[in-house]
Amino acid sequence: MPDAPFDLILSDVRLDGRRCDLGLRDGRLARIAPAGTLTGGPVEPGRGLLALPGLVDGHIHLDKTFLGLPWLPHRPDGSVAGRIAAEKTQLAAIAEPMARRARHLVESIAARGTTAIRTHVDVDAGAGLAGLKALLALRAEVAHLLSLQIVAFPQSGVLRHARVLEDAVAAGADVVGGLDPACIDEDIEAQLAIVFGIAERRGVPIDIHLHDPGELGAFELRRIAARTRAAGLQGRVAVSHAYALGQVEEATLARTAAALALAGVAIMTNGPGPEAMPPVKRLVAEGVTVFVGSDNIRDAWSPYGNGDMLERARLVGYRAALLSDAELRLGLDLVTSAPAKVLGLPDPTLAEGAAADLVLVDAAHVPEAVAAAPPRALVVKAGRITARDGVLAR
Amino acid sequence: MPDAPFDLILSDVRLDGRRCDLGLRDGRLARIAPAGTLTGGPVEPGRGLLALPGLVDGHIHLDKTFLGLPWLPHRPDGSVAGRIAAEKTQLAAIAEPMARRARHLVESIAARGTTAIRTHVDVDAGAGLAGLKALLALRAEVAHLLSLQIVAFPQSGVLRHARVLEDAVAAGADVVGGLDPACIDEDIEAQLAIVFGIAERRGVPIDIHLHDPGELGAFELRRIAARTRAAGLQGRVAVSHAYALGQVEEATLARTAAALALAGVAIMTNGPGPEAMPPVKRLVAEGVTVFVGSDNIRDAWSPYGNGDMLERARLVGYRAALLSDAELRLGLDLVTSAPAKVLGLPDPTLAEGAAADLVLVDAAHVPEAVAAAPPRALVVKAGRITARDGVLAR
Repeated sequence: MPDAPFDLILSDVRLDGRRCDLGLRDGRLARIAPAGTLTGGPVEPGRGLLALPGLVDGHIHLDKTFLGLPWLPHRPDGSVAGRIAAEKTQLAAIAEPMARRARHLVESIAARGTTAIRTHVDVDAGAGLAGLKALLALRAEVAHLLSLQIVAFPQSGVLRHARVLEDAVAAGADVVGGLDPACIDEDIEAQLAIVFGIAERRGVPIDIHLHDPGELGAFELRRIAARTRAAGLQGRVAVSHAYALGQVEEATLARTAAALALAGVAIMTNGPGPEAMPPVKRLVAEGVTVFVGSDNIRDAWSPYGNGDMLERARLVGYRAALLSDAELRLGLDLVTSAPAKVLGLPDPTLAEGAAADLVLVDAAHVPEAVAAAPPRALVVKAGRITARDGVLAR
Repeated sequence: MPDAPFDLILSDVRLDGRRCDLGLRDGRLARIAPAGTLTGGPVEPGRGLLALPGLVDGHIHLDKTFLGLPWLPHRPDGSVAGRIAAEKTQLAAIAEPMARRARHLVESIAARGTTAIRTHVDVDAGAGLAGLKALLALRAEVAHLLSLQIVAFPQSGVLRHARVLEDAVAAGADVVGGLDPACIDEDIEAQLAIVFGIAERRGVPIDIHLHDPGELGAFELRRIAARTRAAGLQGRVAVSHAYALGQVEEATLARTAAALALAGVAIMTNGPGPEAMPPVKRLVAEGVTVFVGSDNIRDAWSPYGNGDMLERARLVGYRAALLSDAELRLGLDLVTSAPAKVLGLPDPTLAEGAAADLVLVDAAHVPEAVAAAPPRALVVKAGRITARDGVLAR
């Protein structure tokens, strides 16, 4: 019996070892068949390119980017408080509405193969929910390019902005954020009580920025793990950055990693520059979910970054010494399966029945794709071609 | 009076602030004039792209690369001795002659804008000078693409291979190498006596690989600095990697940096992955010449690397927190002026009379070029177009 017609056939793609035709229907990967065998639909030649799942950015700040604007030089400021104030000044001076900057960034990363993101958005008593509302509107506009999850991010602290943080979740933020309970709010338990309180009342996951260093940061990680278990939120809590895990001595690391694994608290790293990086291989071996995000993309915090998640996997892999083929495959997981799990999305495997979110690159297999981060030849979101050779399909 | 004819006019390029026409003659940048004013020669449209000097790779291993071969999985081995042995086994099993692998890599990096390199080549009693001789032949073949300086690199140690190391310099190696005097040869003074002895007898510069850690590595750096001054070799000695500078405490760092600055010993970093990186800004502030190289490019030591020196500047800048515009300009110096100085080449500035080695990229200015590392639109070596859009001009 012939196949029902397909919406699209990607012919002759490499699926980690095999050459296949992919039959796409209703946004799904309906059929995987030997190359040259599928018929019944428009054909896009895959030219033997490697198919990867759509890339997932586990941590981005759509509202902060300067990308697409004339260059804004970085303004050095030693203190965190000074940097937060400097960012507010820089962003306030930009005429371009945030929604347009954010949309430009979404289009840029979609063209690089990202099909789902978790974005943070600044929420504080001064700015209120304007940023959140702009991103909620943007989410609908760009749904054909990527899935968008929003974290209400208390960039100015939690204690003095608790009401607006809860209002943000009530207004549609998917996740409640936190920020350095020790060094920003100077009251670890008070901040965590507010963040976990909102999560429990509103039924949303948690994602806490944690730059606090060394033993202090590790202590906070264990407090977050303890509260996660107490609240029954296992698998619903993430901590972003967690530089402390790359700074503490072995006994503290072992104890903290065990607590994170037991509580199902995930760790996000962007493969930081000068800061210490959490030990990725060790954490994964201990059973901790580690996932990767871009973090800053040409903004007040950093002039670097382009949102390319395969380049980011390469950077994290390079920093974490992912060298063997098995380790390089882990590198791909860090930007596909792991963040998808944290975002509550289905596992982005390329199997029949899965969502047809995928990327074609010129590589022999996954290890080479992670080590080389070749450009994206084709991007497909929900069964439709969204970009070719790094340029959005119109 | 009209200009004498040019061999090539690059019209309308951005030269850090101005829009210019560049008139190239006899391999030199003969004239810089306002855009739209130069005539008298074939015109290549610069389309407002930014002109950068040709990129200089201060540390590459042409003889080690697997690039262009079918993928060879990384073989983990904990010990350095084990890795050296594993590399010998892997390279011996490759049918492709080294000269062809090296040429493939030269063509690949030339297409990415590299116009001069310092390559190391393994030299030991077993392999003899075969690798060196192959690279000496290659140098002539690829002179139209890049300038090539060769370091005789004692990958298997100096003490048991001193004769062949000196033979290599006699046979044409431009620089004498060394390797971890403490942890490879277990006799710091004995190795340094041999290396400095060859340099003095043969009149060649020195470039020593130094992975030895912490206080040990810093001690060796000070011993190298002392011997450099004693031999009158100021400005002729480089140490590659020097992870120790990123590991030691402040007092040791200050003392060691001062010794390096006084002796004119340069430090090469590739922006390492898991290893500590020398503190670039601090060293430069102390008067130490810091330069950058690729190091391993898909070889037995690492599956990463592509030889792209603008991406490498971005990586080092990201790792070293080069954030302000002035710091990002330093990032470009690390892959142009600084390695040129170490290689004994003229300063690769884009000024009238300078060698016409240059690269065009889509960026507003140098800071953006370093932060974004855009692809190379055009590469010119000695006044001739050698690559367009990442592909060699034939």
